[in-house]
Amino acid sequence: MQLTARDIARMVDGELAGDPEQLVTGLAGLREAAQGDASFLASPKYQAAVKTTHASVLIIARDLEIDFGGTLIRVKDPSEAFARLVGQVAPRPVVFRPGVHPSAVIAPTARLGAEVSIQPHAVIEDGVVIGDRAVIGAGSYIGHESRLGADCLLYAHVSLRERTILGDRVTLHCGVVLGADGFGYENVGGKHQKIPQVGNVEIGDDVEIGANTAIDRGRFGRTRVGTGTKIDNLVQIGHNCVIGEHCIVCGLVGIAGSTIIGNYVTIAGQVGIAGHLTVGDKSIIMAQAGVTKDVPAGSVMLGAPAVPHKEFKRVNAAIQRLPETLAKLHELEQQLAEARARLTPVS
Amino acid sequence: MQLTARDIARMVDGELAGDPEQLVTGLAGLREAAQGDASFLASPKYQAAVKTTHASVLIIARDLEIDFGGTLIRVKDPSEAFARLVGQVAPRPVVFRPGVHPSAVIAPTARLGAEVSIQPHAVIEDGVVIGDRAVIGAGSYIGHESRLGADCLLYAHVSLRERTILGDRVTLHCGVVLGADGFGYENVGGKHQKIPQVGNVEIGDDVEIGANTAIDRGRFGRTRVGTGTKIDNLVQIGHNCVIGEHCIVCGLVGIAGSTIIGNYVTIAGQVGIAGHLTVGDKSIIMAQAGVTKDVPAGSVMLGAPAVPHKEFKRVNAAIQRLPETLAKLHELEQQLAEARARLTPVS
Amino acid sequence: MQLTARDIARMVDGELAGDPEQLVTGLAGLREAAQGDASFLASPKYQAAVKTTHASVLIIARDLEIDFGGTLIRVKDPSEAFARLVGQVAPRPVVFRPGVHPSAVIAPTARLGAEVSIQPHAVIEDGVVIGDRAVIGAGSYIGHESRLGADCLLYAHVSLRERTILGDRVTLHCGVVLGADGFGYENVGGKHQKIPQVGNVEIGDDVEIGANTAIDRGRFGRTRVGTGTKIDNLVQIGHNCVIGEHCIVCGLVGIAGSTIIGNYVTIAGQVGIAGHLTVGDKSIIMAQAGVTKDVPAGSVMLGAPAVPHKEFKRVNAAIQRLPETLAKLHELEQQLAEARARLTPVS
Repeated sequence: MQLTARDIARMVDGELAGDPEQLVTGLAGLREAAQGDASFLASPKYQAAVKTTHASVLIIARDLEIDFGGTLIRVKDPSEAFARLVGQVAPRPVVFRPGVHPSAVIAPTARLGAEVSIQPHAVIEDGVVIGDRAVIGAGSYIGHESRLGADCLLYAHVSLRERTILGDRVTLHCGVVLGADGFGYENVGGKHQKIPQVGNVEIGDDVEIGANTAIDRGRFGRTRVGTGTKIDNLVQIGHNCVIGEHCIVCGLVGIAGSTIIGNYVTIAGQVGIAGHLTVGDKSIIMAQAGVTKDVPAGSVMLGAPAVPHKEFKRVNAAIQRLPETLAKLHELEQQLAEARARLTPVS
Repeated sequence: MQLTARDIARMVDGELAGDPEQLVTGLAGLREAAQGDASFLASPKYQAAVKTTHASVLIIARDLEIDFGGTLIRVKDPSEAFARLVGQVAPRPVVFRPGVHPSAVIAPTARLGAEVSIQPHAVIEDGVVIGDRAVIGAGSYIGHESRLGADCLLYAHVSLRERTILGDRVTLHCGVVLGADGFGYENVGGKHQKIPQVGNVEIGDDVEIGANTAIDRGRFGRTRVGTGTKIDNLVQIGHNCVIGEHCIVCGLVGIAGSTIIGNYVTIAGQVGIAGHLTVGDKSIIMAQAGVTKDVPAGSVMLGAPAVPHKEFKRVNAAIQRLPETLAKLHELEQQLAEARARLTPVS
Repeated sequence: MQLTARDIARMVDGELAGDPEQLVTGLAGLREAAQGDASFLASPKYQAAVKTTHASVLIIARDLEIDFGGTLIRVKDPSEAFARLVGQVAPRPVVFRPGVHPSAVIAPTARLGAEVSIQPHAVIEDGVVIGDRAVIGAGSYIGHESRLGADCLLYAHVSLRERTILGDRVTLHCGVVLGADGFGYENVGGKHQKIPQVGNVEIGDDVEIGANTAIDRGRFGRTRVGTGTKIDNLVQIGHNCVIGEHCIVCGLVGIAGSTIIGNYVTIAGQVGIAGHLTVGDKSIIMAQAGVTKDVPAGSVMLGAPAVPHKEFKRVNAAIQRLPETLAKLHELEQQLAEARARLTPVS
């Protein structure tokens, strides 16, 4: 990207104040901007960040007075203008053309839909069915009898073990593993004997799963992720879990086996949820919480062991005051001793 | 799977009550069951789950009276009957036939045992030795001079760096990385200078390692995992760790370098263990604990920093009572002030 | 490795006491050593570990008296002697020779530098530029228009999505994913609608990134990692984060989107850092901390929510004393009640 501030001003119908020849080589948020970047101030409340930004060009609201060393471009709605700008200068998205790369290995009994794209070194096993327009990324592995819906997008190095089911428009990022064996053993005479894991994984429509996330197959039956749910990177979901619809599951979350998550649940980063629990609809589990009991619908949970958010705040405030509380207790103790000494002895 | 309740009853020698034509399309635990599933009630103590299950058919004990809207099948031992049923209806396990796929790249000095199966796009480097009947999954990479025992099963996309040693019957799930460099640097004038990592990873017999787990090679010497130990998904084990025999290590656990774990140790999900520690035999480290000191054999540890389980419970109970404790302290303070005011002044 | 204690003594110019024919089959630290290993005692302060080591041969300082059942080798500086020994007996490092393996798939518009090594089944997309002497590991995927500097070393199964930029001498371990889409959605009528992620990932010189770590591409602009920073295994870094120069980021850390980390920052294992925060230069975030606010430069933070280290220690000491504090409070309460009873009633 090689534009001038004047080019940018023209693209967003803005009014330029400063050097029109200022070179713009990138776009970035205010805080992460480097020299040569154009950025924007979405709202006056972020104004403090203008002082420390390294951006060279700043798109701001028409009426805003601001102290900024670089070039300003004034527009009516900075967020909208910046989004429009991103749309215009963003590099063309990569498109994986339909067709089967000759290095891919496709079992004779696999059935490919119309206009699918099978990238180099992909491996597709016997009995697989792939929906129309799906993309199978480079080196990805599609295990036996798996069924993928239409318009699925699998990036490089995805692994689907046998009999995985994907709905339509499922996006799997690099390194996702669906259907590895659940972590189940029986202790027989001090040795951990494997419990066969003969179930599978079923993913609903419009689900997106982040890089290197692993979802285990069911012991029997399925491990399920509902329609519209979005899962971040490096998440671990145990066997026979059921994740509801339209949930958000953030990075490094671990959910142990057979736990049921409702619909519209938000699970923040690094949360752990024990096995065989139920988390009700629309609950929010805050970052790093450790859930050890069922969570009623609509709860906001925090802490390890997790408690309702308000309770956590109340207890945590008391905890932070503990050292001064101990000091006060010590003082009371002395006052009491002194007072008792002054009482006439019991006769 | 397309069976009727009558078919199921016949397969488990059960007594049917309800609709014999009820269609059964899957098997699942009570809580995760969907409509059309058959499930089972292992023990009367889970009876409450019957009210909310979506299962259409339920296998229960002969003598149990229960309120269930679907079809019942009564047997002597529901757990045993269900396991038998799973065994009968489970899809045939996938078998990787012996032979070398033509797309695999195998160094001329590698030695393959009898009846090994080398899947498409696998890469096997110089000096590798692979035991009889081992399976090397699609796209897996076996680094130079690695030695794999008999009957190892490596799924797709496993990476073994050079000189990794696997015992017999080792199972590695998709995306496992063994033998990446340990995380060791020396700070030289403000820069982190890499400490060479010239050791390797050695895995005992009958070990199973979950998807996307990473175990680093030793700085020198080995990082070791003992016979019979089972490791879940997304676990990180640092260089020169020694994990004992018959341990259980759950998902998202991190163990820093040079820590020694005894035998029969259980490490629950998301636990972190600092480096250069020793965890004694048969200890249990509970979920999300942060271990910062040596752990004596037989301990049950919880919390961050981790303390013995009983201590944690005692302290946590006191913590949860903190807000009311502060209120009581405030009350005492007032009572004391009032009492002191009533004492005759010191003359 | 098959040496005798006598061989070892000769290699380190040491003085042997014990069995010169003792076989040495490996090298290891004191605590992780197994039978047949040679080890060393770096300092008398680790002397206690000698009692429990399984090493057969021990390199120690000339003047140290020690109780050890195996063979001793006395030298002036045991650490230096051991390092020298490691250097001599370490297996030859694996070298990936320049050249392009015929199974690699390289787009016609990709440009390869001098002496690059492209390993089997690697895939290199259109418009990629690879610097001199770089190594692209087996099965690795280099997305469209990515640019790699000189002397980069990518191990097997690395995935770089389109337009990733690597500096010189970048090392990426197996399973690293750079440039997967950031985790960004807008809630539109209860559904999570994807926000396009059109930025990229830029990595500075001399960066090393551990196995299965994932760094997401910017929403727009870049996610950046500065020169000299070292990142461990299974780390998750969100979109538009900026990690400074010469930082250390340990295993299983999660950093949410748009957070800015300064230079020379150390982030210990399993730390979580919320999004849109700033962590100042030379800060240390201790293991498992949960950072929820900006961190001033030079801070040492601990706990969840994270507080300065000293405050954490003070509060935690008070917490551990809570049960006895409650007992004391109860005692004071009784004493006070008794004292008040003895006061003459208010007339």
